[in-house]
Amino acid sequence: MRRTLAFTVLAMLLGAHVALAQAPDPDCVPSRLNVAEALYPCIHPDNRVTVRVNAPDAKSVRVSLGGGYDLEKGSDGIWQVTTAPLAVGFHYYWLTIDGATVADPQTMTFFGSGWQNSALEIPDPDGDFYQQRDVPRGKVAQQWYFSKVTGKWRRAYVYTPPDYDTNTSARYPVLYLLHGWGEDETGWHRQGHVDIILDNLIAEGKAVPMIVVMDNLNATKPGESGAIFGARGLVPPPGAQPAQAAPARGAGPGRGGPPAGGRGRGGSLARSTYTEMMFTDLVPTIERLYRVRTDRESRAMAGLSMGGAQTFGTVLPNRDKFAYVAGFSGNCAGFGGGQPIDIKTVCDGAFADVEKWNREMKVLFLSIGSTEGPGTKNLSEALTKAGVNHVFYESPGTGHVWQTWRRSFREFAPLLFK
Amino acid sequence: MRRTLAFTVLAMLLGAHVALAQAPDPDCVPSRLNVAEALYPCIHPDNRVTVRVNAPDAKSVRVSLGGGYDLEKGSDGIWQVTTAPLAVGFHYYWLTIDGATVADPQTMTFFGSGWQNSALEIPDPDGDFYQQRDVPRGKVAQQWYFSKVTGKWRRAYVYTPPDYDTNTSARYPVLYLLHGWGEDETGWHRQGHVDIILDNLIAEGKAVPMIVVMDNLNATKPGESGAIFGARGLVPPPGAQPAQAAPARGAGPGRGGPPAGGRGRGGSLARSTYTEMMFTDLVPTIERLYRVRTDRESRAMAGLSMGGAQTFGTVLPNRDKFAYVAGFSGNCAGFGGGQPIDIKTVCDGAFADVEKWNREMKVLFLSIGSTEGPGTKNLSEALTKAGVNHVFYESPGTGHVWQTWRRSFREFAPLLFK
Repeated sequence: MRRTLAFTVLAMLLGAHVALAQAPDPDCVPSRLNVAEALYPCIHPDNRVTVRVNAPDAKSVRVSLGGGYDLEKGSDGIWQVTTAPLAVGFHYYWLTIDGATVADPQTMTFFGSGWQNSALEIPDPDGDFYQQRDVPRGKVAQQWYFSKVTGKWRRAYVYTPPDYDTNTSARYPVLYLLHGWGEDETGWHRQGHVDIILDNLIAEGKAVPMIVVMDNLNATKPGESGAIFGARGLVPPPGAQPAQAAPARGAGPGRGGPPAGGRGRGGSLARSTYTEMMFTDLVPTIERLYRVRTDRESRAMAGLSMGGAQTFGTVLPNRDKFAYVAGFSGNCAGFGGGQPIDIKTVCDGAFADVEKWNREMKVLFLSIGSTEGPGTKNLSEALTKAGVNHVFYESPGTGHVWQTWRRSFREFAPLLFK
Repeated sequence: MRRTLAFTVLAMLLGAHVALAQAPDPDCVPSRLNVAEALYPCIHPDNRVTVRVNAPDAKSVRVSLGGGYDLEKGSDGIWQVTTAPLAVGFHYYWLTIDGATVADPQTMTFFGSGWQNSALEIPDPDGDFYQQRDVPRGKVAQQWYFSKVTGKWRRAYVYTPPDYDTNTSARYPVLYLLHGWGEDETGWHRQGHVDIILDNLIAEGKAVPMIVVMDNLNATKPGESGAIFGARGLVPPPGAQPAQAAPARGAGPGRGGPPAGGRGRGGSLARSTYTEMMFTDLVPTIERLYRVRTDRESRAMAGLSMGGAQTFGTVLPNRDKFAYVAGFSGNCAGFGGGQPIDIKTVCDGAFADVEKWNREMKVLFLSIGSTEGPGTKNLSEALTKAGVNHVFYESPGTGHVWQTWRRSFREFAPLLFK
């Protein structure tokens, strides 16, 4: 420190243009999603984030964190900004360098909004439940299967609990778990840490050993439209004006939410092709290759955001096959929330016969981040008023982000298969 | 086509400035590593590649493919270049936008050179061996384990063959398989398609069912230097001059090869800490959690490039534990190739007693891409001259790239455990 100061003073006296790289703030800790040796982005103790970017010839550099920030070029030639404090948990973000939308090369990338985003992680004092502990560990396996419905190979990830390989005569209940808009089958274990959360819950005796199948909710038949993403950074298709082709940067798509046009009635986001594919291809594959129980009281489905809508779209017409259903920041009554809810007709009339629902379904679980809209809470209140058994969870201080969904899973998993 | 032409002529007559996005060449097929809906990069029938980048305000855009190309901004505002024909197989690449090194947002990303590169895939007429077929499929599972040697959690990926879950009394031989410089434990299944290759070989009866453990070769004890990557695109550490901090862009690091400074004696790339970690932490974890055979004739090790050097560094002093060893574009005699080879001293004297080597080791396999240096071929010739049993494979028309290593694995796997 003293030496640097002396050198700087000396250089100033000599009139030299000093371009030393800026010394990092020792209190600013590199995000744990950074690649090895990357000092930035780093997290300050108050959850402000410093982003630094090496773009020597750029005219403008912007980062999408929070409401978006312009970086300034420092005397060391590096672009820099420090954000306002961010919420705890996982944040997708991207850079705009002279108009080009790109990931920050300093972080690992995560599939969201239809492309490989950069991301950072703000530690959560309440985050011990997704930290690795020295407990028996399950596995997450890549399982390829050919889909007759889509005519394509598909990839699912399958969590098997710690005792699966040793307890070879046991059969396990199974949870089908979906990601959100613009994400894929990697989301729940890479962004969500579902394996760590479940390993920890099982070790504590809070959840029963189960299999979790994480599939890709995007399924289209040959010739069916698959235009689902609208990812950033793509060269526009022919006929489009490049200036208009830069996708919207609203909170929804940037954070795993549904595309703006898809808001409203959540049910409209559910695709019957996914449901058909699931029952034709996925479920039989899982039941053939894994030791799973096949009765409805041993089968659950859950999803986040658009995956929550898909979950209800799949489960509600197939209640003979599932006894548990959950939507995290996504459900069957729309995402918006302002609408009055008619319990007789909402969710395609699933709750019209309350007694039947309560008798058949063992758990209905709904959750939302406290800084999201009131939609799910309104639905929960209407369900309560009508006497529909359910569990509602609100994640404190988080929005339409993975921290809400990690916590939601922690709350939901202990309710399963008991 | 006719309609576009008519519109263009009309616009010209009216003196308008037309900025329609360019119609894609129907013969240029999007790389199969592109994200959904991304039309570029695309591959022409003669293996030229067209790269297009949406960077409206940039002054210069460059792509690292081949020797590197400057893109030109078209009348539609999109930057574009078409390369010379590229070799078949997987190519890492990156963009430089006004001096910033970034991945192309239009592709999935792959960990190489210490960061998340973009990549493209040129189809290989000989590439059927790594295409998915309707045969029984194995799994690739993420296996976390705590390392006492490094004091950290580590992740390996473990391939189990198609019959592993049903043939529950069988025990399997095991291959430990390492990636190259700047890569990680995801390389062999994401870039290498090791699971598909092995599924296909097993279905054809050419390889025996085996377990493949893909670990990360980077292992350091607390306090030990872990400076292994020198990734591109990072903000330089304090004290470094930004202008000098942009890492070298030689063929080695860009393509998974060892860093330039690490060339020469390959053995020097092997770390004894990895070997210690492997025997202390990894092997016991695998032998506890998987049904593997534990005799030396049921244990093999192989690696590519720096991982080949590490493989020999681990196996040669531990021949009581392994009967099979392979290096793909990496071995125990250096990468360069010009040096004369003394068979008595090369590879720490492992071949000094030829009879002992031939008696103990069931397979020694060496391979190289035909457009790489002559090092491995020289070693093979020296081994042949000295009477050391081994198999040498040269991948036609490929360099220090994954296509060489996919083919090497296809050649090596059938030799194992027979």
